[in-house]
Amino acid sequence: MKHYLQAYRNELLGSVIPFWMERSPDSVHGGYFTCLDQKGQVYDTDKFVWLQARQVWMFSMLYANVEPNPAWLRMAKDGAAFLEKHGRDASGDFYFSLTQTGAPLVQPYNIFSDCFAAMAFSALYKVDPQLAYRQLSTDTFHRILSRRNNPKGTYSKTVPGTRNLKSFALPMILSNLTLEMEHLLDPGLVKDLVPGVIHEVMEVFLDAESGLVLENVLEDGSFSDCFEGRLTSPGHAIEAMWFMLDLSCRFDDEALRDRAIATGLKTLEYGWDTTYGGIYYFLDCKGHPPEKLEWNQKLWWVHLETLVFLAKAYQLSGDKACLHWFEKVHEYTWTHFRDPDYPEWFGYLDRYGRVQLSLKGGKWKGCFHVPRGLYQVWQTLEQLT
Amino acid sequence: MKHYLQAYRNELLGSVIPFWMERSPDSVHGGYFTCLDQKGQVYDTDKFVWLQARQVWMFSMLYANVEPNPAWLRMAKDGAAFLEKHGRDASGDFYFSLTQTGAPLVQPYNIFSDCFAAMAFSALYKVDPQLAYRQLSTDTFHRILSRRNNPKGTYSKTVPGTRNLKSFALPMILSNLTLEMEHLLDPGLVKDLVPGVIHEVMEVFLDAESGLVLENVLEDGSFSDCFEGRLTSPGHAIEAMWFMLDLSCRFDDEALRDRAIATGLKTLEYGWDTTYGGIYYFLDCKGHPPEKLEWNQKLWWVHLETLVFLAKAYQLSGDKACLHWFEKVHEYTWTHFRDPDYPEWFGYLDRYGRVQLSLKGGKWKGCFHVPRGLYQVWQTLEQLT
Repeated sequence: MKHYLQAYRNELLGSVIPFWMERSPDSVHGGYFTCLDQKGQVYDTDKFVWLQARQVWMFSMLYANVEPNPAWLRMAKDGAAFLEKHGRDASGDFYFSLTQTGAPLVQPYNIFSDCFAAMAFSALYKVDPQLAYRQLSTDTFHRILSRRNNPKGTYSKTVPGTRNLKSFALPMILSNLTLEMEHLLDPGLVKDLVPGVIHEVMEVFLDAESGLVLENVLEDGSFSDCFEGRLTSPGHAIEAMWFMLDLSCRFDDEALRDRAIATGLKTLEYGWDTTYGGIYYFLDCKGHPPEKLEWNQKLWWVHLETLVFLAKAYQLSGDKACLHWFEKVHEYTWTHFRDPDYPEWFGYLDRYGRVQLSLKGGKWKGCFHVPRGLYQVWQTLEQLT
Repeated sequence: MKHYLQAYRNELLGSVIPFWMERSPDSVHGGYFTCLDQKGQVYDTDKFVWLQARQVWMFSMLYANVEPNPAWLRMAKDGAAFLEKHGRDASGDFYFSLTQTGAPLVQPYNIFSDCFAAMAFSALYKVDPQLAYRQLSTDTFHRILSRRNNPKGTYSKTVPGTRNLKSFALPMILSNLTLEMEHLLDPGLVKDLVPGVIHEVMEVFLDAESGLVLENVLEDGSFSDCFEGRLTSPGHAIEAMWFMLDLSCRFDDEALRDRAIATGLKTLEYGWDTTYGGIYYFLDCKGHPPEKLEWNQKLWWVHLETLVFLAKAYQLSGDKACLHWFEKVHEYTWTHFRDPDYPEWFGYLDRYGRVQLSLKGGKWKGCFHVPRGLYQVWQTLEQLT
């Protein structure tokens, strides 16, 4: 498996990161353009806060872990300055999107803007320990915790009381964010939080009967037989399983490691399109028609996160099933998502594997899953003996 | 063209309407099931208010215009009773969705629930003139007018002031609703409203330069170069053009008729997939990647509304281009959307015309576009000499 290492490293450092370095900075107003077409031309100038934050995180992380390239640090700090100046409303919550100049467009209805902002400033503090970065990160983290039970706040359209669902996305992201921010958090808080998020992911949202992770369950953890309750997102579940593997390493928890590997593999068997290859975006756990029209599309992040999971699972367990799947998903991913003509990868394929949006970045795709995935696989393969 | 008549009539009365009569009534709790799989089995029991209302409208309209079948009236009144009892919140706005028993699930964030409720009770009043129906319809209509400038109310996620967009959907639906409700409205109100909605559709949202109808424009009517501002939905625009044709007949406006026909044909040329056939769901008017992942799918309602437009346009103008296009769209629609094995039509095809959700009804597809389209084409062909 180790022979894959160079491909991941070279693609990251020789192609993907230079693409974002060259194409995304807004030298006039600060922050990053993320709406970039196949060749890297800007086709829209709006700034989506979570994508801004993810890019700050990415360049801070690379500076810390790959090499102290001053251009990477400048890149991270430029995005951070834009977020500091324009990102938050009066109560400190992060808007969802801004205009090119930083005027707020969409309210802070989406707590993932805050999650990635906390993660960004935490990573930046590691490489440039300014108190303001630390403060912004921990303040944001505490606001996230206080908004946990009602993350959409007044923007929720659900009538309270009839069918109170909770979503997998928040415990999942907290399981990663808590490790990312451990250097800034009180050890007691980490010790309190971690068992809770592991329990939510592995006991509450992981349905014991089917072995599948559900995207939404009732507040008491039970199954809700409705569109949202039946929804599964294999890529989301598999990504969460590599967060669980990281936690299993950090806290030396072999049982968690084994369950995360088994769950990830089971989800992959379930989500793999045996006819055309690739992993479905959404499936209804009872086999009914999913509500989402894009259910059978093949998305870049799903495949990159699956490669990270499989590399880590193989490195930790030596399980040949992980190796076999890694080879299969690697082959599909590199053949279908990587653009042979221009840098960065395609994001959106139809069921048959044909590119159906040729963009390299947009409203939902930025400098994150491709470079993080390449980095994580590279680093994991380095550890293989 | 008249030889198509029997096919539309027979499909409506011999297959589609019997399907909804047999499969959708909830004999226990009232209202209708709309989540019906390929064979007509219920796979979800939630009740989506606008689909409930559309079905009340459909059966009332058929009773008034096709034949006074008492089973059709019972069907309409059962749905109306469910909506009367459970549909509204304390201020009289219609929820978006309810559980099977009628408990509210999703708040009245979507004014189209109200639009279709007003339309439903107005049509029901025509065939069963109970004052309560009339009152509910006109009260709802006046609430819609008062919510016109801020239809999403507190559920809007847009930060006011930065980029105030208005959406094509509301003037479009009002152009139809005002005619539908004319028998209940003060003639002065109709005379006030109609020129305004025609102006919005044909001058404000119809972009003079490109000849295309935009889904969103700035409050002052100007183009906004962002994802929402560049968005076009050919089916939506073409549907609006047959509403304009109805208005042109009602108010004897030949200039409107000619512009509506020209705009509909231009939109169809623009929206037709010359490689695989069928009409795209969404396109970016500048040719950039659309935000919507389902942009290149082929949806049932788009094609049915286009057939209605083309039939009306041909009947009014005798223009051979309309005939030619009708034949082409008819062939695509009947070959791809009609299910040869079970009643009712498929709703969702991928770009290549393959069925990608086999449902006959769901959260967004109910007893509406297929039967209304079949009925409208049938009736229009009846008028051809």
